Amino acid sequence: MKFLEERILKDGQVRPGEILKVDSFLNHQLDVDLLNEIGKTFYEKYKDCGITRILTVEASGIAIACLTANYFHVPVVFAKKAKSKNLDGDLYSSVVHSYTYGKDYTVTLSKKFLTKDDKVLLIDDFLAVGKAMLGLLDICAQAGAQVAGIGIAIEKGFQPGGKTLREAGYDLTSLAIIKTMDDEGNITFREQ
Amino acid sequence: MKFLEERILKDGQVRPGEILKVDSFLNHQLDVDLLNEIGKTFYEKYKDCGITRILTVEASGIAIACLTANYFHVPVVFAKKAKSKNLDGDLYSSVVHSYTYGKDYTVTLSKKFLTKDDKVLLIDDFLAVGKAMLGLLDICAQAGAQVAGIGIAIEKGFQPGGKTLREAGYDLTSLAIIKTMDDEGNITFREQ
Repeated sequence: MKFLEERILKDGQVRPGEILKVDSFLNHQLDVDLLNEIGKTFYEKYKDCGITRILTVEASGIAIACLTANYFHVPVVFAKKAKSKNLDGDLYSSVVHSYTYGKDYTVTLSKKFLTKDDKVLLIDDFLAVGKAMLGLLDICAQAGAQVAGIGIAIEKGFQPGGKTLREAGYDLTSLAIIKTMDDEGNITFREQ
Repeated sequence: MKFLEERILKDGQVRPGEILKVDSFLNHQLDVDLLNEIGKTFYEKYKDCGITRILTVEASGIAIACLTANYFHVPVVFAKKAKSKNLDGDLYSSVVHSYTYGKDYTVTLSKKFLTKDDKVLLIDDFLAVGKAMLGLLDICAQAGAQVAGIGIAIEKGFQPGGKTLREAGYDLTSLAIIKTMDDEGNITFREQ
């Protein structure tokens, strides 16, 4: 997973408040060749798990999920953060607290797109406190779907999300785990 | 572009208020093989235009834009609908009225990801009244970027967006143009 660490060191920027900006390649501008490399890595890890669906949450998870699904040839389903006129019927929903936006929001998913027969790979760009991922896991539990694994591009290893998920027994793959970062822009990674 | 028309007839659902639900393959659950076919079609159309960036708007445009960019090997940039802590620096912005959500919102894009040297392909899943696309075009004008073309999966041909864009001289490619749809679920397409 060195390729992502190297890209973070090259193009990531540390901002006060333990914010890592990777908007030039991961969540505003998207480097599709890099996303392909990420997707391929998740495929190599989970290709024998019988994955039937890839689950993520809008918006920045969608890109990685799609380029991963492109190897698996299974559908992506993304949980939505707002209820639109175009979402109807029975919904799974879960309340998530966003530290980035400083408020609670509800993620929703149509029940018809996740069932007890699914083996799910969950994908997201970032894992920090882990609230968004816990919302997706809550939706999987409501569906009775089996969680085969969780694929994360960048984990903030100094925040509790990764520890929480590993201790709960999930097969979590984070391609880059940030050990420390400081306001001078220095970043170190956890050995894997 | 018959493949998308056929899929709409098979899996699309008409809802009162001229809403076409394609959430089983295009904007909630995503059929990645179909998105690949869409991306390949846009690539065949615009591959000789010197495209440097693909521009879309979150959230459902991201999937099509990524699978299209996967053929072009150029970056995707997606305009954001909310200002987060992680967006800083100089921004382009444009106000868009959403008929789906019944309110105005502002789309923003970091100035560093679109410049006067870019030749842009704009991508979105739906074109109806065209307000979201006009917001993206406004951002391109602010950047001084050249618009090489606009690729849309589904155009509601009975709403004014397509006519507005074609009359303004844009090279608009809509893979399926809905001519009529009624509450009994009947859908017809414009011949292309």
